[in-house]
Amino acid sequence: MSNIPSDVVVGIDLGGTKVLIGLVGPDNSVLSRYKAPTREHHQPDELLKAIAAGVHEAAKKANVPWEAIRAAGMGIPGPIDAATGVVKLAPNLGWSNVPVREVLERELGLPVGIDNDVRVATLSEFQLGAGRGHQRVVSFFVGTGIGGGLVLDGQIYHGAHNAAGEIGHTFVKAGGPLCGAGHKGCLEAMASRTAIQRDIVAAAKKGKATALKNIAGKDLAEIKSGDLAEALERNDKLTKRVVRRAAHYVGYGIASAVNLLDPEIIILGGGVVEALGDTFMNWAIERARPSIIASDARDVAIVRAELGDDAGMLGAALVARSILTHS
Amino acid sequence: MSNIPSDVVVGIDLGGTKVLIGLVGPDNSVLSRYKAPTREHHQPDELLKAIAAGVHEAAKKANVPWEAIRAAGMGIPGPIDAATGVVKLAPNLGWSNVPVREVLERELGLPVGIDNDVRVATLSEFQLGAGRGHQRVVSFFVGTGIGGGLVLDGQIYHGAHNAAGEIGHTFVKAGGPLCGAGHKGCLEAMASRTAIQRDIVAAAKKGKATALKNIAGKDLAEIKSGDLAEALERNDKLTKRVVRRAAHYVGYGIASAVNLLDPEIIILGGGVVEALGDTFMNWAIERARPSIIASDARDVAIVRAELGDDAGMLGAALVARSILTHS
Repeated sequence: MSNIPSDVVVGIDLGGTKVLIGLVGPDNSVLSRYKAPTREHHQPDELLKAIAAGVHEAAKKANVPWEAIRAAGMGIPGPIDAATGVVKLAPNLGWSNVPVREVLERELGLPVGIDNDVRVATLSEFQLGAGRGHQRVVSFFVGTGIGGGLVLDGQIYHGAHNAAGEIGHTFVKAGGPLCGAGHKGCLEAMASRTAIQRDIVAAAKKGKATALKNIAGKDLAEIKSGDLAEALERNDKLTKRVVRRAAHYVGYGIASAVNLLDPEIIILGGGVVEALGDTFMNWAIERARPSIIASDARDVAIVRAELGDDAGMLGAALVARSILTHS
Repeated sequence: MSNIPSDVVVGIDLGGTKVLIGLVGPDNSVLSRYKAPTREHHQPDELLKAIAAGVHEAAKKANVPWEAIRAAGMGIPGPIDAATGVVKLAPNLGWSNVPVREVLERELGLPVGIDNDVRVATLSEFQLGAGRGHQRVVSFFVGTGIGGGLVLDGQIYHGAHNAAGEIGHTFVKAGGPLCGAGHKGCLEAMASRTAIQRDIVAAAKKGKATALKNIAGKDLAEIKSGDLAEALERNDKLTKRVVRRAAHYVGYGIASAVNLLDPEIIILGGGVVEALGDTFMNWAIERARPSIIASDARDVAIVRAELGDDAGMLGAALVARSILTHS
């Protein structure tokens, strides 16, 4: 019976609309996946109970006996108090001050580790994905917002209050348009999908023609990353102009991060980068490299994330495994 | 004879116009100082020989027998190859690829450590000055240019190619005016003394009145930080407008650094900050704090450097002492 998995951990990627649960073996292989929507659960306790049930489902699916599961990790879209395991704020879930670690440990009967979703995704790209073998990694995840994570001298960097990595809120065009948090000209306000939508809607209102009206339907405020990809394929001028400018700002953000932190590798992920691929990457890179000041640092690798939708879940599994190592 | 100093190190702060040499005791007290201009020595070897002679002068002055001196450290205005001790480029000295460590070790007969000047100043502020007791420190030195240094999780952070800390070349107003290195809208291009001079000269050319014409003399391009301080004291409107804008950009730079690195303390030093004091600090802070995204991180201490002109020399002495610890 040597086929019965042992030393298994659970990785949970909790997002605003869905949760992805994975059972992960000691070699970081995914033994089973379980996906569920999150919107139907209005109370944190209710959602965490449903997640615990999902973990049991995933165990059943993979024929993993419960005793083989050692710990669980979870990535959460918001800031965490690392010492207490309390989620301070998760706007997409409508949560504030939820003692997630405590509740989930009780529901699962397992030790639980939690961290910010983007940092967890950076951890998995660092240990299992595009950043393997490097000691200094800076990630940019470009989607509705822009998040980031830092690996410095071989370790995920948390900062003094577990608040490090807010690369979307570094200023690249001070005094520019507003981000969702009310700051003018931070990277998120210049280069997120929200920013791209805003600029396309504004140009269309001024009468600029765009193929997006046929692709995305009448409401341009609902443009998805896939719609932008299709418009670029059709060589839509407005989309090209707006997306290229956004990618250039990401390029400035990359150059700033390299000039400050001199990493070996920059990893770009998130919905916008996944949908627009090399087109977006090349625009970002054409602006980033000439803006890097030290000649050695200019050779930094600038690559796409490798783990896609699994990055958060696999990173959460790594957080789970790190509890076992440290205890 | 217990008064004879022992376990002494040498700190050398090499600048574009002068070199400051200090003999430093085991308690980091300065036993003697020796200052000399650097401009008269056109060849690196010549200057390094003169520096070695200066170290002997400083030893004589403090009655320190040569045998009591254990090591020397030097801060240099440019990027260093840490492994080889070669100065790659020091524009203010006209140096490129100078094997400083090798030459100075031969001239002094002592082990020598070298590092970038701003990083060395950050090290001394961290261990002996405003950053004492903190684990995460970001420094901004605002003068002719803008340099910076990072202490992350209790260690000076060097990056992958010893090129980390170029905070003056992070972009705060992408597409803005040029810095000396040809980049548009980096912090140095927006907030250094060079940037302030540029904006004052441009406004004066357009006919704006300014007391600086009386204070600094006819050539506004030669404005010094002290002239700016005097103009602010006289409540000169143009100076106030331009310096305040520069300080606001430093504030955006501080917010970016806090959002990315979540340090306990931000230290501001350099000629502009020393001359303009709290006026400059307060303008920087009034823009920085509201631009910090995490509520915990917003309480970061934002303070002036404490060591003034000694920061580089004392930091170089700490570099010297770190060789002894590591060997």
